[in-house]
Amino acid sequence: MARIKLTLAYLGTGFSGWQIQAPNQGKEARTVQGVLEDAVARLCGQPVRLHGSGRTDAGVHADGQIAHFDTPAGTPAINWRAALNSSLPPDLSVLLAEEAGEDFHARFSAKEKIYTYCLWLERAFIPPKLRDRVWACGPLGPQGLAGMDAAAALLIGEHDFAGFQNRGTDPADTRRTLHEISRFYPALPGENLPDPEGRYLAWRFRANGFLKQMVRNLAGFLVAVGQGRLTPEDARRALGSAGRAGLDFPTAPARGLSLTGVIYQGKAD
Amino acid sequence: MARIKLTLAYLGTGFSGWQIQAPNQGKEARTVQGVLEDAVARLCGQPVRLHGSGRTDAGVHADGQIAHFDTPAGTPAINWRAALNSSLPPDLSVLLAEEAGEDFHARFSAKEKIYTYCLWLERAFIPPKLRDRVWACGPLGPQGLAGMDAAAALLIGEHDFAGFQNRGTDPADTRRTLHEISRFYPALPGENLPDPEGRYLAWRFRANGFLKQMVRNLAGFLVAVGQGRLTPEDARRALGSAGRAGLDFPTAPARGLSLTGVIYQGKAD
Repeated sequence: MARIKLTLAYLGTGFSGWQIQAPNQGKEARTVQGVLEDAVARLCGQPVRLHGSGRTDAGVHADGQIAHFDTPAGTPAINWRAALNSSLPPDLSVLLAEEAGEDFHARFSAKEKIYTYCLWLERAFIPPKLRDRVWACGPLGPQGLAGMDAAAALLIGEHDFAGFQNRGTDPADTRRTLHEISRFYPALPGENLPDPEGRYLAWRFRANGFLKQMVRNLAGFLVAVGQGRLTPEDARRALGSAGRAGLDFPTAPARGLSLTGVIYQGKAD
Repeated sequence: MARIKLTLAYLGTGFSGWQIQAPNQGKEARTVQGVLEDAVARLCGQPVRLHGSGRTDAGVHADGQIAHFDTPAGTPAINWRAALNSSLPPDLSVLLAEEAGEDFHARFSAKEKIYTYCLWLERAFIPPKLRDRVWACGPLGPQGLAGMDAAAALLIGEHDFAGFQNRGTDPADTRRTLHEISRFYPALPGENLPDPEGRYLAWRFRANGFLKQMVRNLAGFLVAVGQGRLTPEDARRALGSAGRAGLDFPTAPARGLSLTGVIYQGKAD
């Protein structure tokens, strides 16, 4: 037996999220875990359970998702990356396959996760190369960036993020530590320079864990602040209260979100 | 009548190129020009001819293609960008619509064009966000970058590029002036930093005109040099000779190529 650690990238658009789902009216949803488990099982000659660092929603992308599986006894050592990539579809790739120690667990060993949320601040058009990869939320208001920065500063740190979770999983403890919320201007696709008008904007979130749709709610909150519908100080109200404290902000759409990486042993992977 | 100049972006993957084609066995190919002409015609209430700066092949993308059309007499002034984008598919967008002078012609007024060719120098995987947008040509050889730079230096300038054209159009004059061939490392999708291992590489080509598939042949030549199958000095043999001078280099695949922009009046658009 060997424990194999996979670093994965996928375009979330064509997947019903990470997690395998029970068939619905006999129809199986296409999930990242499902497609990968099938590929691993074909190579092992038997079903193999894959453990991800965590779920991603339908439509959410990943550039550095981590998963692991144990090879069944008697499975020969092979080049897992090459073997898996030769049968995986174009929207799902193994970037790295490494043997990990028995004590490594993709989910339980994870110390921090990094997500990136991409915005397109223009309503008149979306660059086709950014379709399905941004939330075209439209322009910010005056002082929009300053407001978002002020809100981000209030959100950083250890807080009860119950006001930023969507229902469904309901963990007992909703305290998390947000180590970083920072913004940057990604380069335009295939370029090394950002949009000269500053319309392509991204937020990076790093925390010791995230509640259900927490990043998408944080992104929705930041945009509501940036567009002047909420104030940065509303972050204080939302933090610690359940159910958004009556504040009107959306869960940002899945397509703008990517799981950038998972950090183990306190170091970026 | 008004002459409208459009700046267009499209993902080439779903198009059979720019140019409208005669129906094949009753089936119409989906072309950029065709989809756009249909959208313009719906707004004008009659057929309208669209003139592009030039064709792009099936699978080739554009971030700054230019086209123009004349509105039929009596067409009211409207917001063409908004009106067109509301009916265009997600893989084709109007970035800008401006009224141009009568003497402006998308093709005949063009002074220079800029193309960008993107490579992924790794065989083990392709990042899913780069699929259909790069040629995954595999790693370069030792001194690969230096070799490509030396070849590029020989190709810059005014030359007979007959050795870098594919047959089909056969213009009388195959001399062109390549003002620039330069390489850069694009940022990874949604990031502002390049691949740390230097595997995502792009070449930018600027010339007063390009022969049929000339950029793709130049890219194929550069990669053949970078991988050690040709020498930089082979550029001298290929230049001026018809039919590649017996040199073995491929026409790089369409998916790595984007029309970045068209320059009018000597200034970048």
